[in-house]
Amino acid sequence: MMIVMKEGATEAQIAAVVKRVEAVGAHAHISQGELVTVIGAIGDREHVANLGLEGAPGVDHLVPILKPYKLASLQYRRDERTIVEVDGRKIGGDHFATIAGPCTVESREVMLDSARAVKEAGAQLLRGGAYKPRTSPYSFQGLGEAGLRLLAEAREETGLPIVTELMDVRDLEPVLEVADVVQLGARSMQNYTLLTEVGRAGKPVLLKRGLSATLEELLMAAEYVLKEGNPNVMLCERGIRTYEPSYRFTLDLMAVPVLRELTHLPIVVDPSHAAGRRSLVEPLSLAAAAAGADGVIVEVHPCPEEAVCDGPQALRAEQFAEYLRKLEAAAELAGKQLEVV
Amino acid sequence: MMIVMKEGATEAQIAAVVKRVEAVGAHAHISQGELVTVIGAIGDREHVANLGLEGAPGVDHLVPILKPYKLASLQYRRDERTIVEVDGRKIGGDHFATIAGPCTVESREVMLDSARAVKEAGAQLLRGGAYKPRTSPYSFQGLGEAGLRLLAEAREETGLPIVTELMDVRDLEPVLEVADVVQLGARSMQNYTLLTEVGRAGKPVLLKRGLSATLEELLMAAEYVLKEGNPNVMLCERGIRTYEPSYRFTLDLMAVPVLRELTHLPIVVDPSHAAGRRSLVEPLSLAAAAAGADGVIVEVHPCPEEAVCDGPQALRAEQFAEYLRKLEAAAELAGKQLEVV
Amino acid sequence: MMIVMKEGATEAQIAAVVKRVEAVGAHAHISQGELVTVIGAIGDREHVANLGLEGAPGVDHLVPILKPYKLASLQYRRDERTIVEVDGRKIGGDHFATIAGPCTVESREVMLDSARAVKEAGAQLLRGGAYKPRTSPYSFQGLGEAGLRLLAEAREETGLPIVTELMDVRDLEPVLEVADVVQLGARSMQNYTLLTEVGRAGKPVLLKRGLSATLEELLMAAEYVLKEGNPNVMLCERGIRTYEPSYRFTLDLMAVPVLRELTHLPIVVDPSHAAGRRSLVEPLSLAAAAAGADGVIVEVHPCPEEAVCDGPQALRAEQFAEYLRKLEAAAELAGKQLEVV
Amino acid sequence: MMIVMKEGATEAQIAAVVKRVEAVGAHAHISQGELVTVIGAIGDREHVANLGLEGAPGVDHLVPILKPYKLASLQYRRDERTIVEVDGRKIGGDHFATIAGPCTVESREVMLDSARAVKEAGAQLLRGGAYKPRTSPYSFQGLGEAGLRLLAEAREETGLPIVTELMDVRDLEPVLEVADVVQLGARSMQNYTLLTEVGRAGKPVLLKRGLSATLEELLMAAEYVLKEGNPNVMLCERGIRTYEPSYRFTLDLMAVPVLRELTHLPIVVDPSHAAGRRSLVEPLSLAAAAAGADGVIVEVHPCPEEAVCDGPQALRAEQFAEYLRKLEAAAELAGKQLEVV
Repeated sequence: MMIVMKEGATEAQIAAVVKRVEAVGAHAHISQGELVTVIGAIGDREHVANLGLEGAPGVDHLVPILKPYKLASLQYRRDERTIVEVDGRKIGGDHFATIAGPCTVESREVMLDSARAVKEAGAQLLRGGAYKPRTSPYSFQGLGEAGLRLLAEAREETGLPIVTELMDVRDLEPVLEVADVVQLGARSMQNYTLLTEVGRAGKPVLLKRGLSATLEELLMAAEYVLKEGNPNVMLCERGIRTYEPSYRFTLDLMAVPVLRELTHLPIVVDPSHAAGRRSLVEPLSLAAAAAGADGVIVEVHPCPEEAVCDGPQALRAEQFAEYLRKLEAAAELAGKQLEVV
Repeated sequence: MMIVMKEGATEAQIAAVVKRVEAVGAHAHISQGELVTVIGAIGDREHVANLGLEGAPGVDHLVPILKPYKLASLQYRRDERTIVEVDGRKIGGDHFATIAGPCTVESREVMLDSARAVKEAGAQLLRGGAYKPRTSPYSFQGLGEAGLRLLAEAREETGLPIVTELMDVRDLEPVLEVADVVQLGARSMQNYTLLTEVGRAGKPVLLKRGLSATLEELLMAAEYVLKEGNPNVMLCERGIRTYEPSYRFTLDLMAVPVLRELTHLPIVVDPSHAAGRRSLVEPLSLAAAAAGADGVIVEVHPCPEEAVCDGPQALRAEQFAEYLRKLEAAAELAGKQLEVV
Repeated sequence: MMIVMKEGATEAQIAAVVKRVEAVGAHAHISQGELVTVIGAIGDREHVANLGLEGAPGVDHLVPILKPYKLASLQYRRDERTIVEVDGRKIGGDHFATIAGPCTVESREVMLDSARAVKEAGAQLLRGGAYKPRTSPYSFQGLGEAGLRLLAEAREETGLPIVTELMDVRDLEPVLEVADVVQLGARSMQNYTLLTEVGRAGKPVLLKRGLSATLEELLMAAEYVLKEGNPNVMLCERGIRTYEPSYRFTLDLMAVPVLRELTHLPIVVDPSHAAGRRSLVEPLSLAAAAAGADGVIVEVHPCPEEAVCDGPQALRAEQFAEYLRKLEAAAELAGKQLEVV
Repeated sequence: MMIVMKEGATEAQIAAVVKRVEAVGAHAHISQGELVTVIGAIGDREHVANLGLEGAPGVDHLVPILKPYKLASLQYRRDERTIVEVDGRKIGGDHFATIAGPCTVESREVMLDSARAVKEAGAQLLRGGAYKPRTSPYSFQGLGEAGLRLLAEAREETGLPIVTELMDVRDLEPVLEVADVVQLGARSMQNYTLLTEVGRAGKPVLLKRGLSATLEELLMAAEYVLKEGNPNVMLCERGIRTYEPSYRFTLDLMAVPVLRELTHLPIVVDPSHAAGRRSLVEPLSLAAAAAGADGVIVEVHPCPEEAVCDGPQALRAEQFAEYLRKLEAAAELAGKQLEVV
């Protein structure tokens, strides 16, 4: 932590800060500029942060130097990238993967039709939501455990591993029985008790970035999972809040190369929710792959017009194989392979 | 819902939209402009929204007409404002209230000292966190149940009702035993299972706006609580995410008069977390009261320099009475009374 | 400037940075932490910034220490606040002032009626736009020089000093003939040639914050004016861009107390443009004054329903005196006096 | 324009709105829902907008139906895309182009070395700034007319057309003498007098999106140029302001496919300024091309360490040919050809 003093801070004020820094066992290193003095506090980040020096006499502001995440940082793994393996499918490193399926598990027929289409076209994993976070209490909230059973049936038939969302810590057991990857949605990114439980459960996790989470906050959320001993965390960019009214969310594709410089964890992009309509999904998917993403998660539906939820953004099942071929070419541009299992 | 067709949409496309609207039992009302046709779909909002017409041929975009919240709207109560009463203290309508106390319950001594100071100066309710949502898994996470016991002791001694945060649905029982008002933090605003449980519990709720929640989303979160039969919801503005790097959060005081036009629920402002430092808390509190807020929630500490958490933004206990006097004058400007119990 | 090296930066990389820092005449001060080395570059900010060390081997990131503005900073005037005097009216320090009038100069009758109403109610300065920045090329662009002549007539009749906007550097002469305060609009905040010319002209300037300008950028824009020898700059907060769709702009009232800590320049708030509707103008004005603003600039119209531009946000002339009385009370709460001339 | 009345609006209020709509020559079309009445005002958009109905009794809010831009819309050209041709190089439609060169014209040697490198690698146009908009009045502001002469020399030697920025309307003549494409920077996007003059001048224009401009505002700025009879406008996405502190700006690649649905104008992406560092430029460029951009504008420098301005984000001249090859492959994915002249 660097403590930047105000112009005109007195000797006594500087000495007082040094004393408080040293009181928590940190070392204070003084750097005297022409106008401003900077005190480097070398020691435990949390201890120094807890000193609350922001308000102290003569202090202008504090600049943290060390990153607050450890296990998630690229340095921690000495630049070796994590490859998450789910039932033989790999995501991360040179391995690109596509997770596809309907937004919501809505009926046995739609679920199985989607699963077959996704499998046939060559996607690696199958998605589908049994529990749906909905802004309105009056909207369909998902089939719950009945939906989980349909996902299990779809896996049995197609052999595709299942990615499905967990919203309530009380549903952890049934979700773990079916999910091969537990998804935590954007609204749950800072649900710390959920993060901790999923960390303990040990199954691979797909962690979506919150609607206005910084990359640092996303990595800190991953740190909650990693800290419990679960190394299989995939990060997912799904669009952030900006002032632009033309989109539902602004897909932040800069996050892809920037996260690659910060972390060893695989980075997946969800273009469907930001886009909100089918015509944008392909260009955004290609862009994500070209930018270096390790995978995409997209919505595919056999008949989007009849989907219970988010139909307008779902790719049509019959276009999906062609979409995957282009995606493969884009991933190759970034040095990755889309393995068709 | 208004369905705006593209320029040059064909008769057949218009007819197809009308057919789908009518298929869900809604009435389609066509309005033909010089360039563009607009179809009004009159009927159940959810049904029409679920049609997924955004992607349909010839459709440009959809404009929702009805507000998605019902119980939270000012019309629902025919312009009569909700007054939440907590153990004799009133918030809402003409009644202004101040909720004060330390950020975190950190020790018996600090908790009781704070409670006495807050009581003596004339605040109406006592705040203090036993469970703390922390960005870092390495930060102090609160005293938990031991903290709840200290809050109970503070209430016993001072008679002040307790406002404290609930983060995990599994802690509902112990929190309800101690809390007079259950606080849901910004990160939990869209934790829908938590909202539902708190709605069922029936105790007054202080619902903080999410870091990037729109006012409509805040009201929809309140709707989850109201729908379960709990009418005692207070909304809390606590700062939003913007591009401005000079503040931790941008306190959105426009929310105060705008929410007053949309809802009958009381509106409380938390200036401490956005400010991040003591010097800003008073001007922002006065501004909130002058803008028409029904209350403020502030952090007060007997010795901020030694606070475990967020000391720099805590008001000093000895300045608190003077602060309350000015706050009272500002609330009066907006036609409200700060009742010193 | 502090140069933060990456974890694992080599001795050679550190030495290379030191060498480049010293090559531009700055002093390099090394601070070695357990994990990370920080190099303080002490010397000319611009020279060090121009080194472009962000890309250099082993460098993680740079942290500027000194603020980039000088003349605008509170330290520069040793905590003495600037009081701008316009024809006997004072703004800044303990002096609160109200600038009022129609959005646009639209006709002789409306202009003179507005001016009389504003004068009678007790405002200090008269506003009115002859040149209007409009998003659409098809909108009314202002009366231009004819509008300036009407402003001159209104001043002659009422004695009120005139605040009016300059958009094009080629209109500098005619605007200077009429304006007592030259307004630079939000869209012109980073029009550097305009800032420089207005700085040379010497007349008081009302500088509006850009739609997404940081406080630092606003102060840098002021610095362009101050640097040319014109000390009479007033800053104006008028709402920023955020994700919230319920408002036209989000009025950032935190800017008021934060700017007071950074600069000696007076701070004026424009509540009308962010609000976009009359009912919000009074609560936001009172909040601005209670937060410590040095003045407000509001739109007042004798008959808002017939205004050419922005009628819905204009206060009605007959309500204006009552509004001013409340505003005076709010300014007093913050220790300021609204002088009725 | 649709005028949405409040729940409970009276017959008289509805009649009053209809009367005002009809008074400006528009037709009022009433659509009565169960709870809410909507009045469609069919006629001149500006006239209806100027009615200022937002404040009228019983009115809840207004919804514009027609897009405010005309000449820039895809419909205006009946879905035919504009191809801008600059001295034989084409941008738009199926034609992808790369504009490259140093940020600033800083010296004869650097300018000519850059131009040769850019030419040799196969870029289509040469960029370089003679006038530089700088946040700080103390920063280097460009070589001005001397810089323009160096650009002219570079064109003469390499044959590459020149893209250079115009900031001040008083520099129009000398810039037009040298520029083949006149660039308007992000800070000038709403400098309406500059837009009008550039529209009259007739030379191709590269119009950068403002730091927080919506896509609609960008298209309205283009409309100012088009309206003067200049059809050769290229739009440029260069990063927007968001809350994310890890980047200088957030490159908004969603703008590419969304603008393609709204306008016939070519869309160019500038990845350098948002990135701020070299390592991000290639992945973002590939993503832009894969998303369907018509071109990129990037900074290339023979020796970035010695650049006067923005060196860290400049590609090294020796890597540039390899970068162009990958870019070509990405553009092909989106159905475009990068023509190496």
